[in-house]
Amino acid sequence: MSQPATVADVAAVAGVSRQTVSNALNRPEVVRPDTLDRVRSAIETLGYRPHASARRLRTRQSSTLGVRLEPVHGISGAVLDRFLHALVEHADARGMRILLFTARDVDDELTHIERLVEGSDVDGFVLTSTFHGDPRPGWLADRDVPFVLFGRPWGQSAERAEVLPWVDVDGRAGLRAATAHLLEAGYRRIGFLGWPSPSGQGDERRHGWQDALAAAGLPDQVQLVCEDDVSAATEVVTRAVADGAAVDAVVCASDTLALGARFALGPDVPVVGYDDTPVAEALGISSVEQPLGDAAAAALDLLMGTGRSVLPAPTGHRLLEPTVVWRP
Amino acid sequence: MSQPATVADVAAVAGVSRQTVSNALNRPEVVRPDTLDRVRSAIETLGYRPHASARRLRTRQSSTLGVRLEPVHGISGAVLDRFLHALVEHADARGMRILLFTARDVDDELTHIERLVEGSDVDGFVLTSTFHGDPRPGWLADRDVPFVLFGRPWGQSAERAEVLPWVDVDGRAGLRAATAHLLEAGYRRIGFLGWPSPSGQGDERRHGWQDALAAAGLPDQVQLVCEDDVSAATEVVTRAVADGAAVDAVVCASDTLALGARFALGPDVPVVGYDDTPVAEALGISSVEQPLGDAAAAALDLLMGTGRSVLPAPTGHRLLEPTVVWRP
Repeated sequence: MSQPATVADVAAVAGVSRQTVSNALNRPEVVRPDTLDRVRSAIETLGYRPHASARRLRTRQSSTLGVRLEPVHGISGAVLDRFLHALVEHADARGMRILLFTARDVDDELTHIERLVEGSDVDGFVLTSTFHGDPRPGWLADRDVPFVLFGRPWGQSAERAEVLPWVDVDGRAGLRAATAHLLEAGYRRIGFLGWPSPSGQGDERRHGWQDALAAAGLPDQVQLVCEDDVSAATEVVTRAVADGAAVDAVVCASDTLALGARFALGPDVPVVGYDDTPVAEALGISSVEQPLGDAAAAALDLLMGTGRSVLPAPTGHRLLEPTVVWRP
Repeated sequence: MSQPATVADVAAVAGVSRQTVSNALNRPEVVRPDTLDRVRSAIETLGYRPHASARRLRTRQSSTLGVRLEPVHGISGAVLDRFLHALVEHADARGMRILLFTARDVDDELTHIERLVEGSDVDGFVLTSTFHGDPRPGWLADRDVPFVLFGRPWGQSAERAEVLPWVDVDGRAGLRAATAHLLEAGYRRIGFLGWPSPSGQGDERRHGWQDALAAAGLPDQVQLVCEDDVSAATEVVTRAVADGAAVDAVVCASDTLALGARFALGPDVPVVGYDDTPVAEALGISSVEQPLGDAAAAALDLLMGTGRSVLPAPTGHRLLEPTVVWRP
């Protein structure tokens, strides 16, 4: 197969500079008419296709995926940024680009999505931060717009959840592994510090802790609940200990909570967080690490199969195993 | 509501084939001028909105800015992500979108940039992480591609630097303010922990520390140099103190270095970092905070003026003042 013609080829055939070709394409009014004719003739002869928009118009493909960039909050906020980095890398390897948009809330997000769909600006979407009652999967599915979720379709009906394409990390397995490891190391009073229920991710992580305790025959341990805030977590743990709660280790739903637990308990009580943030690393706090590169690759696998364009109706799901980073 | 007009409708009204309509949209140079007029008139009459790609083809605008997403390393790595968040927000308010790409190195980045320019995929670029010998400003300027730098044009000739559009945060002012504040609080032996020279940002920050010391008549204080690594910084500071270095406070070129200094000196010696990362916040380390929202807004001001499209040749620069976040 011959290579597509380039600006340099056009310049050579027309006997002009690359800049002149560029001017002929972009600012024809500054090019002399006879030169313009030569360039246009060279373009036609070579079948040069100057503009990606024209190519996309023919193929009806943008080779672009839309992703909402969410505000970053707190210690774990950058996890979605790390997923985005991995997504851009893996998308690039498949000839796809990422178009970012921002939204105030989910309604505003749907407005943006609708505009991008109507403009054929993207071939599909990667949706992050799924939640109970999330209207986006249904909206997109109803309109045959391809998408994949990073996060499970929490709270969707079983029928719908069955056919929705999603990738997620198994937080339950992560907390189960962390708790089992602490049990093997001899800890017996392993508490859990999590978020108020219902929380899709938070409840999964709590179940992982419960799984390991049940398997070890130690079901009833201290369970604390707190918003995702360092000071609040410090206070909740400090008060629980003052009230007589017995813990010799604590596994947590986030690094933010783990940091609070560390401040409350000191460095001698093992604490495990979630997301392996720079804060956990800096303070030597163990943490569950999500395989974000694998998650990004899996999202593109579901969306594109083995090909180089987005499938009309992606389906299937992948639940990835996290690993625990033990410190020190 | 009536159905939107199609290419077939346009062809029927103009009395031409669908292929001719397609040519008129994609390769107007191959269509006879009177035919082109008929097609354009039919498009106008029918209010035909062909496709975002075709619209962009006509206007030669993509309403899109290209930004390289760089790998995140270390504690301060997410600062560019925070700038990106602000850029997406401010761009959205101006009707612009952000297209992300990734690159292995600066040569690979130029290859990506060239492809995006040739495809008219973007109207311009926001370049981050400027450095001594950076070939990107010259490459883009030579090709009349609009861009703005986030970061000064380090090491460019004075003539070139004068006309390049850039936004940066005045790290010198930040470290000057931090050092002056410590002097006012009574500290007299204020050391500096920075990166090896030459480093555009690092040298500026060191100069700020020197400015404040010189103004106070205390010019000769401990100056330490280290790669941007917590363990290395801890070791450098520990060794210096063991060797008799006298410091009662330390200002640093980064939060990573500040964390090392904190580990070496304990919580009783004031340490000031740079970038106000979650790690600095979690550990109660004071830090210089960059006004990233203002920087993103200023970058778009330079690139677009007060309008809604990218200027042909942006110019000018803005040097923004950071603030010091004091903790506790």
